[in-house]
Amino acid sequence: MSPRVMICGDLVWAHEEAQHLFQGIADVVRMDSPNRDDFLTGFKPGGKYEGTLAIYRHNSSADRIGIFDRPIIDALAPSVKWIAHNGAGYDQIDVAACKEKGIVVSNTPGAVDDATATTALYLMVSALRGFALAERNLREGKWKSGLSSARTHDLTGRTLAVLGLGGIGTRLAELAHAFPMRVIYHNRTRVDGAPPWCEYFGADRLDAFLAQADVLSVHVPLKAETVGLVGEGMIRKLKKGAVIVNTARGKVIDEDAMIRALEDGHLGAVGLDVYPDEPSVNPRLLAFSNATLLPHMGTETQDSQRKMEVRALTNIRDYLTKGKGIDTVPELKELVAKL
Amino acid sequence: MSPRVMICGDLVWAHEEAQHLFQGIADVVRMDSPNRDDFLTGFKPGGKYEGTLAIYRHNSSADRIGIFDRPIIDALAPSVKWIAHNGAGYDQIDVAACKEKGIVVSNTPGAVDDATATTALYLMVSALRGFALAERNLREGKWKSGLSSARTHDLTGRTLAVLGLGGIGTRLAELAHAFPMRVIYHNRTRVDGAPPWCEYFGADRLDAFLAQADVLSVHVPLKAETVGLVGEGMIRKLKKGAVIVNTARGKVIDEDAMIRALEDGHLGAVGLDVYPDEPSVNPRLLAFSNATLLPHMGTETQDSQRKMEVRALTNIRDYLTKGKGIDTVPELKELVAKL
Repeated sequence: MSPRVMICGDLVWAHEEAQHLFQGIADVVRMDSPNRDDFLTGFKPGGKYEGTLAIYRHNSSADRIGIFDRPIIDALAPSVKWIAHNGAGYDQIDVAACKEKGIVVSNTPGAVDDATATTALYLMVSALRGFALAERNLREGKWKSGLSSARTHDLTGRTLAVLGLGGIGTRLAELAHAFPMRVIYHNRTRVDGAPPWCEYFGADRLDAFLAQADVLSVHVPLKAETVGLVGEGMIRKLKKGAVIVNTARGKVIDEDAMIRALEDGHLGAVGLDVYPDEPSVNPRLLAFSNATLLPHMGTETQDSQRKMEVRALTNIRDYLTKGKGIDTVPELKELVAKL
Repeated sequence: MSPRVMICGDLVWAHEEAQHLFQGIADVVRMDSPNRDDFLTGFKPGGKYEGTLAIYRHNSSADRIGIFDRPIIDALAPSVKWIAHNGAGYDQIDVAACKEKGIVVSNTPGAVDDATATTALYLMVSALRGFALAERNLREGKWKSGLSSARTHDLTGRTLAVLGLGGIGTRLAELAHAFPMRVIYHNRTRVDGAPPWCEYFGADRLDAFLAQADVLSVHVPLKAETVGLVGEGMIRKLKKGAVIVNTARGKVIDEDAMIRALEDGHLGAVGLDVYPDEPSVNPRLLAFSNATLLPHMGTETQDSQRKMEVRALTNIRDYLTKGKGIDTVPELKELVAKL
């Protein structure tokens, strides 16, 4: 019997590629459970998902079966050996539980960089130039009435502070460098191969990093230690009128602290693609004329969606044919080394 | 008696610079006429504007005295020798009448490039990614409902067709090259010093230029011969789903032809900063979900407004001290050569 690969959640663009990738290698089955109980039952002996070796996972599956928390991971073992998550952020998967059960998790880091960085660039332009507000003005028949160029700025010559210079942060840095903006970054450690014009600020210079930022763009993954990372302390060290852009995860920012700083004018504007409890959006955010608010559009393009789907599926194919995929998440690299 | 320099219309950011620039060289007077008659009377012998040698002009003056058409130019002669217009586009000044009267007109080309090209970039991102619609969706409490990544695209790898590779078009080309997009351009003649990666399409290849465009961005000045330049013919030679961005002047596009192409789906999206009869906007445009519509925000930033004001004033100072400013509009360069 061929090994089975499960498609769990949306696979929209790469159907043909999926057929091609797994031809003669594995049988592809769709997760069709209407709810969590049905899904868990499917993995029991004699269940409909028995023999599943690898799972392609999209966040959309959470609508029916919930996130991949410990009860789900427990049910997948010992059959499932690889979860190929479609997306850069894998906070909906309990990687500690996966590690215990010997299940490797891969994500699709490179495939999301371009589309997400473009989203951050758009939010930065809108925040500095006041464009989202300007369009609402036009659509309300007010043309430029009430708008003021006193509150708006060119990007050129300003300082972009990248919090987390991974793939997306680096891509945004490249786009901002074209103006040019000055680009500085903070990571726990200096990034090998960072562009030479991209200045590193370590933990000992975090205050200076924040004080010099005209725009702080957030690109750190959501983990226990990054919840609320951009809080009252960091926000108040930004200069008055600074802009925050977030295309990472909503919970990385302390939303209450950010709203206070918008209320008292410490922040000049914000550009947000992500929210702590999305798809619900704090209605207080809607009241700020200087907030540009997108509904998590980071990677929402036909091109990038296809690229991500193919990348996730390729990780599974590589596991099946070579014993490992290339995008293992950092917490589980040790597991792959033992494969 | 010192020569007089008139400030005609908004001078918002560079008051101090104005004092400094003209100290000991000229007296600065404000145009304070409530209407056109008062303005014209001011230039008659014994009138309050007698002896005005140069005029700093901002389009905002048209609200009270109208555009600088032939009757106004006639009234300015023979006293006024230089009109320093604040802006790149000088379609509100009758340059043919100025030529007859020996009045030189300068504009502020370089100062607007960065801010206007950034506006075009924003409109291009919004049009390709569907971001303006996405934000309206969020603000209506609908999150992503009804949005589809099938209609959205990455910029990277797509073809930007620049119609008019002047200062603004070149700046946009540089920003698009960072992704990279492929950049092609059409001018009447090849541009000396155009970037090597920017491919020229002459009149003999205009059809190919249009057929290859994913995005057509318009950067030609409004003149008699450019009214309706982007009409039914050009638009239908674009591929289905192409995007039009306009940060130049509304009348350069045949708006009815553009609306028909939006209605029948030939155009994938538009991003507009300018309109034929602004500040009024054709209400039919508001009905298209794939239209991003800004109220002529091209140069609306504090930084660029200041830069433009200083540049316009510097042209006058140079005329007063050296006999000519550097930004003479093309139609009047001959006049300057004779100064």
